[in-house]
Amino acid sequence: MGLIEQIRDFSVPSPTKIVMVAIDGLGGLPDPATGKTELESANTPNMDCLAFEGNCGLMDPVSPGIIPGSIPGHLAIFGFDPLEYDIGRGAMEAIGINFDLQAEDIVARGNFATVDENNVILDRRAGRIATEKTTELCQLLDGMRIQDVNLIVRPVKDYRFIVVLRGIGLASGVSDSDPQVNGVKPRKIIPLNEPAAKTADIANKFIIRSKTILNKHHPANMILLRGFSKRPHFPSLPEIYKVQAAAISSFPAYKGLSRLVGLDVLETGNEIEDQFNTLDEYFKDYNFFYLHVKQVDTAGEDGNFSRKVELITRVDKLLGNVIRLNPEVMVIASDHSTPAIMALHSWHPVPVLIHSKWCRPDKINKFSENSCLKGGLGRFPAVQLMPQVMAHALKLGKFGA
Amino acid sequence: MGLIEQIRDFSVPSPTKIVMVAIDGLGGLPDPATGKTELESANTPNMDCLAFEGNCGLMDPVSPGIIPGSIPGHLAIFGFDPLEYDIGRGAMEAIGINFDLQAEDIVARGNFATVDENNVILDRRAGRIATEKTTELCQLLDGMRIQDVNLIVRPVKDYRFIVVLRGIGLASGVSDSDPQVNGVKPRKIIPLNEPAAKTADIANKFIIRSKTILNKHHPANMILLRGFSKRPHFPSLPEIYKVQAAAISSFPAYKGLSRLVGLDVLETGNEIEDQFNTLDEYFKDYNFFYLHVKQVDTAGEDGNFSRKVELITRVDKLLGNVIRLNPEVMVIASDHSTPAIMALHSWHPVPVLIHSKWCRPDKINKFSENSCLKGGLGRFPAVQLMPQVMAHALKLGKFGA
Repeated sequence: MGLIEQIRDFSVPSPTKIVMVAIDGLGGLPDPATGKTELESANTPNMDCLAFEGNCGLMDPVSPGIIPGSIPGHLAIFGFDPLEYDIGRGAMEAIGINFDLQAEDIVARGNFATVDENNVILDRRAGRIATEKTTELCQLLDGMRIQDVNLIVRPVKDYRFIVVLRGIGLASGVSDSDPQVNGVKPRKIIPLNEPAAKTADIANKFIIRSKTILNKHHPANMILLRGFSKRPHFPSLPEIYKVQAAAISSFPAYKGLSRLVGLDVLETGNEIEDQFNTLDEYFKDYNFFYLHVKQVDTAGEDGNFSRKVELITRVDKLLGNVIRLNPEVMVIASDHSTPAIMALHSWHPVPVLIHSKWCRPDKINKFSENSCLKGGLGRFPAVQLMPQVMAHALKLGKFGA
Repeated sequence: MGLIEQIRDFSVPSPTKIVMVAIDGLGGLPDPATGKTELESANTPNMDCLAFEGNCGLMDPVSPGIIPGSIPGHLAIFGFDPLEYDIGRGAMEAIGINFDLQAEDIVARGNFATVDENNVILDRRAGRIATEKTTELCQLLDGMRIQDVNLIVRPVKDYRFIVVLRGIGLASGVSDSDPQVNGVKPRKIIPLNEPAAKTADIANKFIIRSKTILNKHHPANMILLRGFSKRPHFPSLPEIYKVQAAAISSFPAYKGLSRLVGLDVLETGNEIEDQFNTLDEYFKDYNFFYLHVKQVDTAGEDGNFSRKVELITRVDKLLGNVIRLNPEVMVIASDHSTPAIMALHSWHPVPVLIHSKWCRPDKINKFSENSCLKGGLGRFPAVQLMPQVMAHALKLGKFGA
């Protein structure tokens, strides 16, 4: 039994309030012109004050050197080891668009693709058609019923979509039709075990019907399916830690994942200010808040250093509102680094901060990658963040006699 | 196979002597008036000198954020992962009173409780009766024989006791009678598998007979049993590391645990000075000593900051004797933090020190929580302490070719 399952036995209810602000893609690398990272270049008096009174550190979301995707990065923040909780590709995409997967659904990731007259794949991505085109094509394929199974098709991004098989007697153990290379024919889907026979049959029939429908939609005249999977099961975070927990995020993937780990997803707007206003509004109703700021990561991925700096400065200002709410524990975390000079997610460990009256002082008075390196939390796997947060909120009793 | 089992294959005998002084509850938090922790407030010239010549660090006994009980904390110091070696509640209590469990014994943790005339539990702790009363009641229940099984009952503390089933054909897989809430009847104990049928039967009969005996002893007119378990098995520390190893402690739990991991438990007195005198006396006879100082933790749990400071100062003075014995390796360790301002065990990592001529200098010249943060050992899981200690005593050969 893993640690997280054991924590359930010694966690205790407590009235303390916890606010975790997850700044997506927060970690960075220095601008060669100034030698300062995005975080070091931003104006962050609130973060620096929290660092002075609290503890800083650096965390590795998946494992040192591994570049986290958004979902594994967040899984770790929530305390679930992304190397242990294996999420199928189909399920991962469904979470990414916040699709409400049912417990018995089977979901696959799909590509629109181009095939020639002999059904040989010319382009696995159909010339990377745009999301708008994919949305249109998904509407053509959506809503089929094959035998007693309903098929739901939803666009993801660019040439990507998901197909959900909803019915009885389905199982996820089937092979992919996507051969992952051009120049060969799509593969027939085969069941990998007895109970998956029906799933394979339905999926193959869906592909044949889809091909007929897509016949005149070159370059998107075929579909390729892979990663058939079910909704992953996570222990409920509110049950493990005995908290009333809410998520505030405007992006589908984080809403989807929050729901899966048992958080209430609160309605909020698209601006950073909206997320902080929502926190204000619901502050009395919950005792654990996960507030997600996406825009910082987007600026990093765009390679826009100064925009990322501006956004961090803006988040710092908004943190003033959180400080005024005076929760017992405040956390600044992140799911991965996104250095603007790389314009990509990176493997660099991410700065993290816990603020509570029970922090042992570490004499750090600045929140930055470099000062976090010397902080009291040290460098640790992100999966160990949540127990430390809960400890600082006095929500954990003693382990063993 | 875990690392500890593999170490057996490459550990080597060596004449070097190792003294580990485990200061229970050593880690602390600052007194708000001075900004200094207990350790920082104490006068510790010997520890500081050892820190200067050796390496400091911070350890997490169980996992970051987890508050260790004394037994898990010590298991980790001895090199056994407390999350991996699962000790049943009954066995944990038996170790705690240094009861000499036999390999085939089944032991349960018991509460004296209060029930009404319908056998509904009014108070799971019988008004928290004192240890003296529990000792008396245990004498009434001790020594029964049910079929061919002997039952041994021993007091633990307050309303707690253990019952040991000693006989043949017993197994630990049975449910609890303790429902863990008031307002319901005690549960019948049921076997969770075939071999445990006899155990359940004997335990149920013991409860019925005990109730009759306790009838006139309100509020302690019932018993509740839980955590039926066997003696845990640990690899022998002396065998793994090829050392002659002795434990010096005046407290039952640490004696019990030391015995389970294969250490000789030496007779000693109740004062801190007695432990150090015993070390002196036996120094020539062993090459690994575990010397346990309990009183520092007690002062912390009592919330007595100045007493904890005095006791650390006293331990420092006594360390002078150990330094004069000149063992090749000296270690200062601890099983958990007990900040006096919390008056509780806490999750904060504990300061640790290894002194040996083979330490790589880390330029730390003070033994304190804050300087340990910058020390050469870094922050690490306590389960990794023992291999590092043995390495510094040149007791480990090369791993792999």
